[in-house]
Amino acid sequence: MPPSTRHGRLLPLFLGLFQGVLLLFFALFVTYDEPSVQAEDTNLVANQVSSTFPFFQDIQVMLVVGLGLLLTFLPRYGFSALTHNFLLLNFSMQWALVLQGLLHHFHHGHIHLDLHKLLISEFAAVTVLISVGAILGRASPCQLLLMATCEIPVYLASEWVIVTGLGVLDVGGTITIHVFSCYFGLGVSKALFRATQQPLHPKETPTARSDLVSLVGTLILWVFWPSFVAVLCQPGDAQHRAILNTLLAMSAGAITTVVASSLLERDGKLSPGHLQNGSLAGGVAIGAVADMAMPPVAALALGSLSAAACVLGFRFLSPLLGRKLTLHDQCGIHNLHGLPGILGATASAVAVLVASKDTSASHPSQLSPAGGNASEVVEGQWEGRGAGGQALRQAAGLAVAVGASLLAGLVTGAALRLPCLARPPERLCFDDSLYFKIQDQAESPGPDSSAEEGALALKE
Amino acid sequence: MPPSTRHGRLLPLFLGLFQGVLLLFFALFVTYDEPSVQAEDTNLVANQVSSTFPFFQDIQVMLVVGLGLLLTFLPRYGFSALTHNFLLLNFSMQWALVLQGLLHHFHHGHIHLDLHKLLISEFAAVTVLISVGAILGRASPCQLLLMATCEIPVYLASEWVIVTGLGVLDVGGTITIHVFSCYFGLGVSKALFRATQQPLHPKETPTARSDLVSLVGTLILWVFWPSFVAVLCQPGDAQHRAILNTLLAMSAGAITTVVASSLLERDGKLSPGHLQNGSLAGGVAIGAVADMAMPPVAALALGSLSAAACVLGFRFLSPLLGRKLTLHDQCGIHNLHGLPGILGATASAVAVLVASKDTSASHPSQLSPAGGNASEVVEGQWEGRGAGGQALRQAAGLAVAVGASLLAGLVTGAALRLPCLARPPERLCFDDSLYFKIQDQAESPGPDSSAEEGALALKE
Amino acid sequence: MPPSTRHGRLLPLFLGLFQGVLLLFFALFVTYDEPSVQAEDTNLVANQVSSTFPFFQDIQVMLVVGLGLLLTFLPRYGFSALTHNFLLLNFSMQWALVLQGLLHHFHHGHIHLDLHKLLISEFAAVTVLISVGAILGRASPCQLLLMATCEIPVYLASEWVIVTGLGVLDVGGTITIHVFSCYFGLGVSKALFRATQQPLHPKETPTARSDLVSLVGTLILWVFWPSFVAVLCQPGDAQHRAILNTLLAMSAGAITTVVASSLLERDGKLSPGHLQNGSLAGGVAIGAVADMAMPPVAALALGSLSAAACVLGFRFLSPLLGRKLTLHDQCGIHNLHGLPGILGATASAVAVLVASKDTSASHPSQLSPAGGNASEVVEGQWEGRGAGGQALRQAAGLAVAVGASLLAGLVTGAALRLPCLARPPERLCFDDSLYFKIQDQAESPGPDSSAEEGALALKE
Repeated sequence: MPPSTRHGRLLPLFLGLFQGVLLLFFALFVTYDEPSVQAEDTNLVANQVSSTFPFFQDIQVMLVVGLGLLLTFLPRYGFSALTHNFLLLNFSMQWALVLQGLLHHFHHGHIHLDLHKLLISEFAAVTVLISVGAILGRASPCQLLLMATCEIPVYLASEWVIVTGLGVLDVGGTITIHVFSCYFGLGVSKALFRATQQPLHPKETPTARSDLVSLVGTLILWVFWPSFVAVLCQPGDAQHRAILNTLLAMSAGAITTVVASSLLERDGKLSPGHLQNGSLAGGVAIGAVADMAMPPVAALALGSLSAAACVLGFRFLSPLLGRKLTLHDQCGIHNLHGLPGILGATASAVAVLVASKDTSASHPSQLSPAGGNASEVVEGQWEGRGAGGQALRQAAGLAVAVGASLLAGLVTGAALRLPCLARPPERLCFDDSLYFKIQDQAESPGPDSSAEEGALALKE
Repeated sequence: MPPSTRHGRLLPLFLGLFQGVLLLFFALFVTYDEPSVQAEDTNLVANQVSSTFPFFQDIQVMLVVGLGLLLTFLPRYGFSALTHNFLLLNFSMQWALVLQGLLHHFHHGHIHLDLHKLLISEFAAVTVLISVGAILGRASPCQLLLMATCEIPVYLASEWVIVTGLGVLDVGGTITIHVFSCYFGLGVSKALFRATQQPLHPKETPTARSDLVSLVGTLILWVFWPSFVAVLCQPGDAQHRAILNTLLAMSAGAITTVVASSLLERDGKLSPGHLQNGSLAGGVAIGAVADMAMPPVAALALGSLSAAACVLGFRFLSPLLGRKLTLHDQCGIHNLHGLPGILGATASAVAVLVASKDTSASHPSQLSPAGGNASEVVEGQWEGRGAGGQALRQAAGLAVAVGASLLAGLVTGAALRLPCLARPPERLCFDDSLYFKIQDQAESPGPDSSAEEGALALKE
Repeated sequence: MPPSTRHGRLLPLFLGLFQGVLLLFFALFVTYDEPSVQAEDTNLVANQVSSTFPFFQDIQVMLVVGLGLLLTFLPRYGFSALTHNFLLLNFSMQWALVLQGLLHHFHHGHIHLDLHKLLISEFAAVTVLISVGAILGRASPCQLLLMATCEIPVYLASEWVIVTGLGVLDVGGTITIHVFSCYFGLGVSKALFRATQQPLHPKETPTARSDLVSLVGTLILWVFWPSFVAVLCQPGDAQHRAILNTLLAMSAGAITTVVASSLLERDGKLSPGHLQNGSLAGGVAIGAVADMAMPPVAALALGSLSAAACVLGFRFLSPLLGRKLTLHDQCGIHNLHGLPGILGATASAVAVLVASKDTSASHPSQLSPAGGNASEVVEGQWEGRGAGGQALRQAAGLAVAVGASLLAGLVTGAALRLPCLARPPERLCFDDSLYFKIQDQAESPGPDSSAEEGALALKE
């Protein structure tokens, strides 16, 4: 039985079973809120929807269209990348909805569904979409689905420990989402491919066209990133600041990417991969500090630093990891999510320390009550713990995210080696035609088509 | 005189005449509302704009970009598909604006234009964009414009009968828009092509690239569909519920599409056409019930069912209709809009019946006042008629939509056979170069261009 | 030293230096507003963000994705067009932020950053993105950056004179942005290329595919244009009217483009270039009058007129300017921004005169207080000056925009001839591979790849 056939039976079985369980779970436990009786309640709901829904749509565009297109840089694997990304988003979101409902929202035997809970589940799904980047093109859909099945519960646990347990501040998911998903993906890749060096596959090299489409994906992500970072902020000053900080970080990151990429090559030509990833690094890093009281220059500097780190990572670290650790990272998620994520986490610890120093400096003189006020807003968030304590908590959160994800990733990757999951043979990697009834990419109807056309013309 | 030339004279004549009539009509009858005098009025207008405009923009993106790209799956007809879709949207919207103004909004010799009226006209235009799918690539722009000219008034009449006359509940246009436009398009196709089997054209087969771009269109439609369904809901609980139900139906539909498509093929490979259409079927079906009080599981189930129906339709029903009825349906609109639309209409009748049973069950005991309350909200909409009566009305609405559209479509299709409308010859179907000054798709400047480059290089 | 290498050293030097200055400037002077202390203030900020941010995102999509894609009509220059557009947007926005901060917002040694100031800077950056169209493909990134460096301060000065000094009404930037940037770009082109006729380059001809992608860019711009025009309007009636007028103008423009393009060719085939540009002309022209009290028919007529002017410009004026003035205009910015901009400015003068006549006509009889009221709203804007005076001011604004931009453009273009800026040699114009490490466009892995695949298959 050829691998595609074996795979073709497992995929619908797994997904069909999951849909059945989902329907049962929803039938038994999930309801909507009761309709509001009072006019004020109706207004409240309307306000919540109108303040969340535009952000929600922006994030959907990012994940479904932007991220999907970014992954189409493999010229013969575009349809697979787009479809698998879409499938995994839906599967992971539904799976997160079930698990989160069971863990956090189970009251009197019912889970009340609302837009906010869907949004939180979508955030969980993001981790899967990022992790997949490490093994893109070399794994079957069944492997990806099993990976999602494992990653979502670990993410939920890790996120609970980091945010609720440790009280880490991370409004844009720098630590909980980006760092976590990066090291989970790398763990999976390591355990799945073990010590075998993955040779450069002839279908792996982007073409001018696939690079262009992938860049469009980057630009869509770039545009909507502020919505991703700011959606969970309190409307008002904090959300305003989160939007501005993200815009500044991403704008500085875009320019630094050009500078760094151009400096690294002898002939000064820019690498498409650097642009596609480096431009987004600022958004990854800013998440942990976006709503904190810090001067705008900090957002600019963080954006620049993380873009530089991302480009340097592509140039030096990725080849090194490949050689020394035989670590395969297809999309370079360590450069886009790992390094900037660590930078952002570090920045959040520093920001907490500096903000507290500002406060104590300003208190005695009472000359800048506003500055003091700004720090108090942040201090309010860490509820009376000292700044040093909060900075330690940020560091501890980073450690938990890295440790938990690496460990869980390694275990998951080992499970993905199960033969029934039908890992594609090397020859058929990076090829849409393994999973889709798609025309050959040669696309040269040339002489035949003219012949057929001629025949048609004769008939008329 | 070759067909393209004949056509080239009729098109500007028709459109120019229409623009003249439109200008005259606007000059005589259309004004804006008077500016508000009171501050409260200004706030009211500002609130209306800020609550409608984001939805309106989402819908514009769906129709202009999403639907346009979805139709580019014909590899040599992408430019035509995109442009004709854009042209028909604008023409139909303007034409609907005129007719709706005359029919519904004519007060003291004036029609007051506002964003809501533009939105309603845009909804009318959607029917044309859907119907066109049945004959895409085999009809001239003049034929499409005449089709739009006929379809808009029939739609307005049918929508009035269904919603105002029969009191059918259909907030997302499942019956009034999707079912109507599907059978209108099929009627046109039947009368236009009669009993001639349309042979498979060599330019009809999608390529890997055209399938990818078309899928991007699907994803854009998928992301913004909740805005389409919820825009006309009352802000508050109903709109919140409509958004959630649409999200659930579309998410379940996406996964069921993969399951169904994979099960139907012996080798388990997915068909791009199934993915491009099946993923959207849930959105079509949910429209009639999106704001009703029903449990979330119903939305999931409806989404799954309609996606399965869509994929099965592509696999079995479309070939059957083609063979038995010589019915040509280029884009498979019967699978995406017809079958899910009928499912959605049926679901709305069932939902009405079940909601009323819940109410009567809960009333005696008064144990679940909230559930009872939810049903009352829906009951309020059908103003004292019984649930059975309302369910009958939903069924009657479906019958009107199917009957009126089929009949009008057949008549319109017969009119499209007029020779002056310049139906393209078979040989030139599915080809951009018939209507556009476009480079040949071969795109191989190869040796010549190198020669030219060499010449240029020498000159320097 | 080959040109690409020379260029490769200057680009990071220039951008790196600029980033350093920007960081220093931000560190010294830029802060955020203090967080609100009162709950009402928080609500105010939240309202401002929620009423501006969706528009801001729409505009970002327009500039980054829409305009970027529109510029990819050059088949081998798509990656460059997209990247340079993105780089210039970020650079110009940051540079405008610095200059505007220094000029307008410097209070007590601090500049308070908010979303509105970022938006204004983004508007300034738009001028650069438009002007670049005149020399697209024939200039190096360094030349483009120097051009941006010169254009932003001139724009800020010209905008200040026109809006603050002369009191010109131009809510959508017709005069200040579109006319200004068009003639600035033409000035640059004239001074840069002087009297040398630019020969038709073999890589300059769009392909079917590049035309399709470019049209997608047009459609994205078309959809979001109302946000661009209406974002700075007062929420309420004025913003509502601006949105409606823009929608009407763009819809009429789209249809008129088809009519005009089809009439101009003997065989009635439409030109992709006409569609890509003409469909947007209505949006350019409507900017100056969008919020004025004028009947809807005026918006329709202005949209139709400007689309016709745009198409006629492409057909007759551009070749003429090329022949007589050896003026090179790669993207036809004079047809899309120049001609419709002048039409829009003229329309604004006429609208002011007509609105005042309406008022005086209606006042004596008091029969149409609403009409009178509408005119008063506009009159309120020009603070007691007569209608004739205001009409003259509109004309003067147009003259200032044309004069200042042409002069400054000519000077800037002369500066761009500096040899160190590494203008690409004719042979390497319109070619991504000069600036990017990109695969050759031939994209034919054909026989080799099969051979490699065979080798891989053997290994397994």
